[in-house]
Amino acid sequence: MAPSFTNGGSSVDTVVPPSVTGRFASVYSEVQNSRIFHTLPLPSVLKTHFKIIDGPLSSAAGNPDEIAKLFPNLFGQPSAVLVPSGSDTVQPNQKLKIGVVLSGGQAPGGHNVISGIFDYLQDRAKGSTLYGFRGGPAGIMKCKYVELTSEYIYPYRNQGGFDMIRSGRDKIETPEQFKQAEETVLKLDLDGLVVIGGDDSNTNACLLAEYFRSKNIKTCVVGCPKTIDGDLKCKEVPTSFGFDTACKIYAEMIGNVMIDARSTGKYYHFVRLMGRAASHITLECALQTHPNITIIGEEVATKKLTLKNVTDYIVDIISKRAEANYNYGVILIPEGLIDFIPEVQHLISELNEILADDTVDEGGLWKKKLTDQSLKLFEFLPRPIQEQLMLERDPHGNVQVAKIETEKMFIQMVETELEKRKQEGTYKGGFKGQSHFFGYEGRCGLPTNFDSTYCYALGYGAGALLQSGKTGLISSVANLCNPVEEWTVGGTALTSLMDVERRHGKFKPVIKKAMVELEGAPFKKFASLRDEWALKNCYTSPGPIQFTGPGSDAISHTLLLELGAQA
Amino acid sequence: MAPSFTNGGSSVDTVVPPSVTGRFASVYSEVQNSRIFHTLPLPSVLKTHFKIIDGPLSSAAGNPDEIAKLFPNLFGQPSAVLVPSGSDTVQPNQKLKIGVVLSGGQAPGGHNVISGIFDYLQDRAKGSTLYGFRGGPAGIMKCKYVELTSEYIYPYRNQGGFDMIRSGRDKIETPEQFKQAEETVLKLDLDGLVVIGGDDSNTNACLLAEYFRSKNIKTCVVGCPKTIDGDLKCKEVPTSFGFDTACKIYAEMIGNVMIDARSTGKYYHFVRLMGRAASHITLECALQTHPNITIIGEEVATKKLTLKNVTDYIVDIISKRAEANYNYGVILIPEGLIDFIPEVQHLISELNEILADDTVDEGGLWKKKLTDQSLKLFEFLPRPIQEQLMLERDPHGNVQVAKIETEKMFIQMVETELEKRKQEGTYKGGFKGQSHFFGYEGRCGLPTNFDSTYCYALGYGAGALLQSGKTGLISSVANLCNPVEEWTVGGTALTSLMDVERRHGKFKPVIKKAMVELEGAPFKKFASLRDEWALKNCYTSPGPIQFTGPGSDAISHTLLLELGAQA
Repeated sequence: MAPSFTNGGSSVDTVVPPSVTGRFASVYSEVQNSRIFHTLPLPSVLKTHFKIIDGPLSSAAGNPDEIAKLFPNLFGQPSAVLVPSGSDTVQPNQKLKIGVVLSGGQAPGGHNVISGIFDYLQDRAKGSTLYGFRGGPAGIMKCKYVELTSEYIYPYRNQGGFDMIRSGRDKIETPEQFKQAEETVLKLDLDGLVVIGGDDSNTNACLLAEYFRSKNIKTCVVGCPKTIDGDLKCKEVPTSFGFDTACKIYAEMIGNVMIDARSTGKYYHFVRLMGRAASHITLECALQTHPNITIIGEEVATKKLTLKNVTDYIVDIISKRAEANYNYGVILIPEGLIDFIPEVQHLISELNEILADDTVDEGGLWKKKLTDQSLKLFEFLPRPIQEQLMLERDPHGNVQVAKIETEKMFIQMVETELEKRKQEGTYKGGFKGQSHFFGYEGRCGLPTNFDSTYCYALGYGAGALLQSGKTGLISSVANLCNPVEEWTVGGTALTSLMDVERRHGKFKPVIKKAMVELEGAPFKKFASLRDEWALKNCYTSPGPIQFTGPGSDAISHTLLLELGAQA
Repeated sequence: MAPSFTNGGSSVDTVVPPSVTGRFASVYSEVQNSRIFHTLPLPSVLKTHFKIIDGPLSSAAGNPDEIAKLFPNLFGQPSAVLVPSGSDTVQPNQKLKIGVVLSGGQAPGGHNVISGIFDYLQDRAKGSTLYGFRGGPAGIMKCKYVELTSEYIYPYRNQGGFDMIRSGRDKIETPEQFKQAEETVLKLDLDGLVVIGGDDSNTNACLLAEYFRSKNIKTCVVGCPKTIDGDLKCKEVPTSFGFDTACKIYAEMIGNVMIDARSTGKYYHFVRLMGRAASHITLECALQTHPNITIIGEEVATKKLTLKNVTDYIVDIISKRAEANYNYGVILIPEGLIDFIPEVQHLISELNEILADDTVDEGGLWKKKLTDQSLKLFEFLPRPIQEQLMLERDPHGNVQVAKIETEKMFIQMVETELEKRKQEGTYKGGFKGQSHFFGYEGRCGLPTNFDSTYCYALGYGAGALLQSGKTGLISSVANLCNPVEEWTVGGTALTSLMDVERRHGKFKPVIKKAMVELEGAPFKKFASLRDEWALKNCYTSPGPIQFTGPGSDAISHTLLLELGAQA
């Protein structure tokens, strides 16, 4: 039958039931509405009676002796796996009080982690209470919370954003702050706390777990792996949530821009992609869309490339494409690129020193204070970037690297270099750059089916860990390439992910960011194809995320390749 | 059943059959693949025998006497409507030779217009030939074409972009160019030509139709309404294609940014939206998403607002929101805004004059040449915008208005004004601006179900008009709020859409751009709600375009409101 076209605005009348949340004035779109009612599958083990089996004792990612000293109560504890059991190993009538907090930047799926915890308590510990701490870790310290009820959670099911209880970037660091956290968990009589966050937040979760254990406080702490950047992962935690959705949103836009580039035939689109340190997002988007040029920060760092090297690499490909009469293309650049280039780091620290004195003369004599290498680099930079480096400083007087629009910088540098080659007669094409930055659009999209299901299982599993009295673990759902029924559920000792860093003369525990491995399967796949992508136009347009039908259950290439390589 | 997560990359192996097209190296995503096989419904009248009924004689949108002089052969001709008939009124064995050309900027659905023409010929005039002119109108003039076969068209069905035959911005204007077009259609023995384009291209189509008719050349010319800007429409042509898809892509991103704004609670997102002259896209996106502030260019022009007025409007709302503790929000700005502000136009033309002399002194004495009003405005502008106005000029030495990043300009002006109010004690909030430009991402997305079906009907209908020997019409598909079966199909006399403009002492025919009507239903709906949207947070997140399931058959608010108001 022919579709009858309806108005998206029919949903204008479908108001979400009034609730106490910030969303009460919102009107849901048809798609938002349909997602609320989307039922989520659970791994089989979470659908039956289960028990928790402990694995072998764990160590640390590095410097186990130091980690052992920092976590005397938790170090070495085994990871836990849920397995089916004849009967429940926990008391069905046990009522729990659990708190949950969102920490750091948004990632699609956070609301589903909370729904998962809530539903676990409803299903397995009737009469339990779930508190949501408002505005991130500050909510714990200030004891700002809301009781999460079925009605409260309902409009957020499978929705993007962190606005159910909001997030924040505060950290619980000082002894006073630990004390505040202690007061809160005692006041609320919490049996458990779930910290949904990235590497730093999970480190913090483990410190809290250690602190509570050391004080004989009953509150157990479990973490959940969140970050669109995809840099919190290990064998037991194959991916952080939000990465899947964010990459697909960016890839949709990149695919559209590619078709535009090919249709118009006259623009090079320079696309900067969010993802502060690691280049996972850029790599995944490249695998999904096949751009002509992709810069991976980790490769630039490993090969110790200069800005000139990277520019030349881009210019060489553009020149070759011009010979084939392709004066268009798409280039992906990771947000963190500039941090990977040592010479840029040197220049910036020199500038920070010089600019601190405020003795920048119009005539440019101040430049003599730069080292030769830095001066050369500075002169190589386009003027607007020079000005940005000079003018835009944070309250501490430091140059704001994150504010540098790398994509525009490269357009200008490439333009200059191509002009030079044109004069020399080695380039005959035409070049017009268009810049894009895809960032905020990806952090709060409606979670994909994968992220929705994955997050729900992470939350549900976290509930199980807490009910079993586990602490200092990160919720771990694995076997993700298989059907959801076969996903494994458990918890990994956070201390086992840690190493130490020396800061201010002290050892600080850190979960190392998982960077793009040049020997890893995703990079190797990319590296084996990029030359072909460079000169031919192998563009793939992933299209908008679908929630039903073809493509709706796809998982990321990164995950598939990494898990495939492990298998 | 639980979904089994698969890899989007399974499609890596589903290569589109090699063809002679530029897409041959492409690998289709699962969604792209699924769209190829999406079957399109046709209006009932195109599924049976039909005949073409002429309506009453037509006139012109303005200055009918001048239009009559410019189009002596075509002026006054009736519009045509297809109605069901007992038998075909055209000879089933008649073989046609038809050419098609894409003109101007990309809009999602262009490929479907071509598929529609092709399928019409296959269904109703077997043995016909369809030529695609390459690279826009230049392809007609240079006789650069490709024969479009079933295999050639196949991978482009329901796909975004214009890359099947590419587009171009050349115009057929001079007597020599008309002569070239004549040579081409004679050489190819064309019975008909379909021009897919915006207002200018359809005017050009009509001039070609008149020229061929005047020379007794058999080639009939039919236009199709294309532009994401939505400014080519009238009673008989309710919308231009591509508007629906582009708005939904932008609205997806805006919706995501809104959720991000609410989750983070600390950013004002200034979103500039593509759409050169008219603000239809901005208005439609506002109706879909409910931003806090939306600037409509036509309103600014009608009310003769200054840049300061617009800034104050924004700042007032931000201040009020700060009182409610909302230090975040989303603001939509149409790309063409600056063209709507008379004082900016004055300043720019003065700058063009002054800068032409190249006597800009460092000391700023040149500013004395500005009128008082322009000087005041110039001083009001943030420095980077001042510099942009001074430095970035096109090859003719003119200031490049389109390059001005209005969203960044407003962030700076708002910041300055808020700082002032802070000093005065009338504003106590915190302000951080984030800028976005959504443009290229929307021009080449996979067409929505609506655009796919609409374009297919436009093309199929154009085939019917040409087979019936109609010329100088624009393909018209209407009744779009009803099920596809009930859509009406026909052609509207292009001369009836025209008025004249005086250029270089001569009358030039023009199809007037349809601007946002302040008395029209879409603007009135928006105006009735915007105060609520400003202070409450009524955000709606439309989510990604769906091709099946809820929301997949939605039509634009603009269309629904306009057609509803007509009914």
